[in-house]
Amino acid sequence: MKVYGDLNSGNCLKVKYTLDYLKRPYEWITVDITVGESKKREFLDINPAGQVPVVVLNGGQAIAQSNAIIKFIAKDSPLLPSDDYENAKVDEWLFWEQYSHEPYIAVCRYHMYYLKKSKASREQWRVDRGEAALDIMDKHLSNQTWIVSSNLTVADIALLAYTRLAQEGGFDLQQRLNIRRWISASEQELEINSTK
Amino acid sequence: MKVYGDLNSGNCLKVKYTLDYLKRPYEWITVDITVGESKKREFLDINPAGQVPVVVLNGGQAIAQSNAIIKFIAKDSPLLPSDDYENAKVDEWLFWEQYSHEPYIAVCRYHMYYLKKSKASREQWRVDRGEAALDIMDKHLSNQTWIVSSNLTVADIALLAYTRLAQEGGFDLQQRLNIRRWISASEQELEINSTK
Repeated sequence: MKVYGDLNSGNCLKVKYTLDYLKRPYEWITVDITVGESKKREFLDINPAGQVPVVVLNGGQAIAQSNAIIKFIAKDSPLLPSDDYENAKVDEWLFWEQYSHEPYIAVCRYHMYYLKKSKASREQWRVDRGEAALDIMDKHLSNQTWIVSSNLTVADIALLAYTRLAQEGGFDLQQRLNIRRWISASEQELEINSTK
Repeated sequence: MKVYGDLNSGNCLKVKYTLDYLKRPYEWITVDITVGESKKREFLDINPAGQVPVVVLNGGQAIAQSNAIIKFIAKDSPLLPSDDYENAKVDEWLFWEQYSHEPYIAVCRYHMYYLKKSKASREQWRVDRGEAALDIMDKHLSNQTWIVSSNLTVADIALLAYTRLAQEGGFDLQQRLNIRRWISASEQELEINSTK
């Protein structure tokens, strides 16, 4: 499997975390989105939507969308529940992450981390929705060790990617003790260095 | 199964289309989002994210997020491919719909249809991304009858919901012949009245 991605992108890191955790072999091909490499003809032939990450299977078939990719990789592994209801809850959180979390937490981080702009210049409506998303997560994790199941799943991986970097987008995790406990447990389980 | 939803919401209609197509029994409970019913305590107990649709199974378990719900309902039906790669492509389009289509097409429709505001007052960046999403779909459908497989899947249902209403958000489908052909075929397969 070839992975086209950028190691500074949380969406791309989800794929790396999943592959590394399951000890699957892969080739990482860096696509630098800051210099427009994801909009070049060569890349658009792989993913017409012009987004990373994309994986290309050994038969040449491509899959885009981080959460679709990690579900594909995790099939028949402990990272996806076998129970139908729990599996639907994983899907629920994956869609919630892309609709109600990533567009606020990750986009504010893009603003500050990639574009080097100030915290004060973030769009207020994105800040408000990002804060609301973190509040929902912190409340949810007040009586759950993991997002869905009794063990780490792709729902944890998907939410971890940008939540652990939320401070780079100007969000404060200091008082969100449940999230901090969960980040720490997830990083330990995934063997990710907590400093990056 | 109880479905909490609003029949003017494309996200809610996805659930109705899927249940009706598969001839599954359900009870529809109307939640009027325009008067804040989805933010009331009673509803938040079902879905803390305060969003419709939500389904509640006979055992009392709730599932939120339209695309998670339709995947759960469609399990082991012709609406989900049995092939792993095709299944991943369905996921890819479902996540693309929630990230790169719904926030532009549906939000512009909300602006005009729910809030009764003018076409000219739409946010330009949302208009541009909505147009780009429709272009990607029209190009994709130039050599495919359905979004993923050789038959209609939940990917078609998810994309149909707001694409068929795109004109209510100020988007023009007149020159997008592949989308129009696909809407017509999907409405026929799902037995949806094309006037609404």
